[in-house]
Amino acid sequence: MPMRHFLNTADWSRPELQAMIDEARRFKASPKGDVLKGKTVALLFLNNSLRTRTSFEVGINHLGGHAVILSPSGGMWPLAFEDGAVMDGEAEEHAREAVKVLSRYCDMIGVRAFPKFTDWEEDRKDKILSAFAKYADVPVINMETITHPCQEMALAMALQEKLGPLDGKKFVLTWTYHPKPLNTAVANSALMIAAKFGMQPTLLCPSEDYILDKRYMDQARMDAEANGCTVKVSHDIDEAYSGADVVYAKSWGALPWFGNWAPEKEIRDAHKHFIVDEDKMAKTDNAVVSHCLPMRRNVKMTDAVFDSANCIAYDEAENRMHVQKAIMKALAG
Amino acid sequence: MPMRHFLNTADWSRPELQAMIDEARRFKASPKGDVLKGKTVALLFLNNSLRTRTSFEVGINHLGGHAVILSPSGGMWPLAFEDGAVMDGEAEEHAREAVKVLSRYCDMIGVRAFPKFTDWEEDRKDKILSAFAKYADVPVINMETITHPCQEMALAMALQEKLGPLDGKKFVLTWTYHPKPLNTAVANSALMIAAKFGMQPTLLCPSEDYILDKRYMDQARMDAEANGCTVKVSHDIDEAYSGADVVYAKSWGALPWFGNWAPEKEIRDAHKHFIVDEDKMAKTDNAVVSHCLPMRRNVKMTDAVFDSANCIAYDEAENRMHVQKAIMKALAG
Amino acid sequence: MPMRHFLNTADWSRPELQAMIDEARRFKASPKGDVLKGKTVALLFLNNSLRTRTSFEVGINHLGGHAVILSPSGGMWPLAFEDGAVMDGEAEEHAREAVKVLSRYCDMIGVRAFPKFTDWEEDRKDKILSAFAKYADVPVINMETITHPCQEMALAMALQEKLGPLDGKKFVLTWTYHPKPLNTAVANSALMIAAKFGMQPTLLCPSEDYILDKRYMDQARMDAEANGCTVKVSHDIDEAYSGADVVYAKSWGALPWFGNWAPEKEIRDAHKHFIVDEDKMAKTDNAVVSHCLPMRRNVKMTDAVFDSANCIAYDEAENRMHVQKAIMKALAG
Repeated sequence: MPMRHFLNTADWSRPELQAMIDEARRFKASPKGDVLKGKTVALLFLNNSLRTRTSFEVGINHLGGHAVILSPSGGMWPLAFEDGAVMDGEAEEHAREAVKVLSRYCDMIGVRAFPKFTDWEEDRKDKILSAFAKYADVPVINMETITHPCQEMALAMALQEKLGPLDGKKFVLTWTYHPKPLNTAVANSALMIAAKFGMQPTLLCPSEDYILDKRYMDQARMDAEANGCTVKVSHDIDEAYSGADVVYAKSWGALPWFGNWAPEKEIRDAHKHFIVDEDKMAKTDNAVVSHCLPMRRNVKMTDAVFDSANCIAYDEAENRMHVQKAIMKALAG
Repeated sequence: MPMRHFLNTADWSRPELQAMIDEARRFKASPKGDVLKGKTVALLFLNNSLRTRTSFEVGINHLGGHAVILSPSGGMWPLAFEDGAVMDGEAEEHAREAVKVLSRYCDMIGVRAFPKFTDWEEDRKDKILSAFAKYADVPVINMETITHPCQEMALAMALQEKLGPLDGKKFVLTWTYHPKPLNTAVANSALMIAAKFGMQPTLLCPSEDYILDKRYMDQARMDAEANGCTVKVSHDIDEAYSGADVVYAKSWGALPWFGNWAPEKEIRDAHKHFIVDEDKMAKTDNAVVSHCLPMRRNVKMTDAVFDSANCIAYDEAENRMHVQKAIMKALAG
Repeated sequence: MPMRHFLNTADWSRPELQAMIDEARRFKASPKGDVLKGKTVALLFLNNSLRTRTSFEVGINHLGGHAVILSPSGGMWPLAFEDGAVMDGEAEEHAREAVKVLSRYCDMIGVRAFPKFTDWEEDRKDKILSAFAKYADVPVINMETITHPCQEMALAMALQEKLGPLDGKKFVLTWTYHPKPLNTAVANSALMIAAKFGMQPTLLCPSEDYILDKRYMDQARMDAEANGCTVKVSHDIDEAYSGADVVYAKSWGALPWFGNWAPEKEIRDAHKHFIVDEDKMAKTDNAVVSHCLPMRRNVKMTDAVFDSANCIAYDEAENRMHVQKAIMKALAG
């Protein structure tokens, strides 16, 4: 079996992803395994992490493996990425060497590398993850860069636990207010997984500025179409919530305003009413609701909704560990 | 057996604590065990640590478990603690979510969170540890906040190794000079364990300003009384050292001066003569002496005393590992 | 067998070092072992690390042991080193206590502590490593301070893999340009290992200012002489490369200019032509070439040379893990 990375769910078929979720369900019932026995997984965190860090490290341990946690203080030491670079500037090392050498010591590599939020054209190149994928001689896992495929897998698993088959369910990804502009990674991933698993995805957001990168919108549209569905974009709260089976809340910064956040802040501040509350939930078809965590209570979602029986955020968080074990098992082959 | 935390020795009976020390003595003779086999303990360090970090991690490993070390660079990400909080300020996450999710991944949680030293009324709420205790679905261990129960257990064990039964022994907790105002945690804990284990505790300090928080003074008084003893407070060096069986040295900042350290510094600077030296030790009943480490040599204690056969500081430090294993075994049930 | 440290190759005989390399070759073929079963190795990193950190941690795991990674944020807490110190300044702890206590918890200790680059007379005392060696009750390993013995062992192993017996081979250690003044540790170690293993060492550098510390030059001269060889110093590129069997590239700051780097920068900037390129390599006897990594491509060495079949830098990096396992096995006795 040729080596594969787990960079994005778009690279994997729906049956492959479903098989991972099925495996994850088995791990949830019986956590231990030996597929990583005697193996090492390097986890490179260029940004802080609580859930991802812990769920990966514990999961690797459950599978008999050893996690090496690399989180350079002060962020990544400067790397060069271009072939043929004359490295007389800041970069002390070419990505090729860092990755090739890690591949000599470890059997799998996870990478977390958030965008810089100053230039989306630059951020969308996902340079660090791409370099690992290009140069690694071992499987690479995306632990959140500009997408967050492990989170979306955990979400899909939690939704199946609650709803059973997902085909045809109305999935609303709603933008919510947050005082700062956040990464679009989870939003990109949530939309894609909804489309991939046959749901009817609606992207609810304040304006066209908050539509996600074309690459992910197109992927979601293509997957939705393959399942006989259509991706809808809505700026109308009532319309979007009406008849929803799933409400997934997330805040993100508007792509056209990357690096110029002052005017974007004004738009955001005018849309605090996008908060997920009981009034809105009453318009749904008794929808399941979730959020990837951390979440600002009573800003993105009211306590009444978050603490209701319909909220599966803790299950989604727990499932991170189970799906990641399934993903690592699939990659370890 | 209902789940219990190990937040403070005050929550545990003397026989329960003695059973842990007895277990610790067995671990000292035979270090390995399997009570944490296949289990994970998250150790959250919001402050630096050498001894606590290493002794916990090694101990967990000896018991067959896996330690996940969480030490967010830049300290804790800002948490909300109040129920119903509208999280539109700094806090990105409610303590409830952070703790509930960790509880899904891990089987036990250790927390180190020092006070901020600007407002004792605020610090004494011990908010972070309290939140973990409140929300965790797994046992929580205090790895030093405003008390340091693991340290006091290691001290009690070391004293029993050296002195045998402790009842009726005169235990002097002496404040010593240090250029900076330090945490009262170890002082609080030392006084409480002395009282709990039937010793005659004397708190020796420069003035009333250095008396410890009423909560801990009262606890010590209550425990001393139950053992037929009395907590004494003294500002007279000769009186305090006279006939002592144990001298325990520690420096701390005066509670009434929290956040207003300049005048307190003047008081401290006038009491450098509180150093533990051979002259003072000569007044004791050949007392055992110790300190929790790190310790400024020839400022808090002279080399002659620290390097003497009566000093058990290294044993106390080593015992940290053994008692912590016993504590974890008790909590793992 | 009395306890030994691995501080410098100079402390070990050539047969002892060769036995470690032979053991490392066995580990390369069959990675697992049990010599550290149930044991803990503390790895103290006072400077960032990718390769050393990962290769040690993975190697310890392969041998059945557990690595405790200590990397105090903000560098080392201030230590006192002198006996009898009155610790009323910055130092919160005497090195003796830190090391003695670690010795109670762990079975072996690795230390990385780079020089400060402001005063070579001070840096060359290697205070932190020396304190560990002095006070530790368990074996101590140098993970790079002012020498880097693990790197030189990995180099020797890689050279033997490529060239077979090394006696009489012409080994050129060439200084190369780098925009910043770097540690001399790898240069010191490369020169010493070449001499130790019977090669003809040539130190090629821009001027006398770049000659290495007398301690290491003398050690290399003594070892070379014992093997019937001579250490040569050259400032002539053609002469040095001519007939070389090995070219080892490294940049370092000139010792006489420590702490006064502005004028040294001018000298360095005038010697960018020391880059290892195809023209220079053509003068050699089809030499093997390497570098310890990280390496600035097309500044220290051209892509054409680095990516050629003669370059063994990745093998040298991989061998770090294997030789370190052999070293730990030798120390664990």
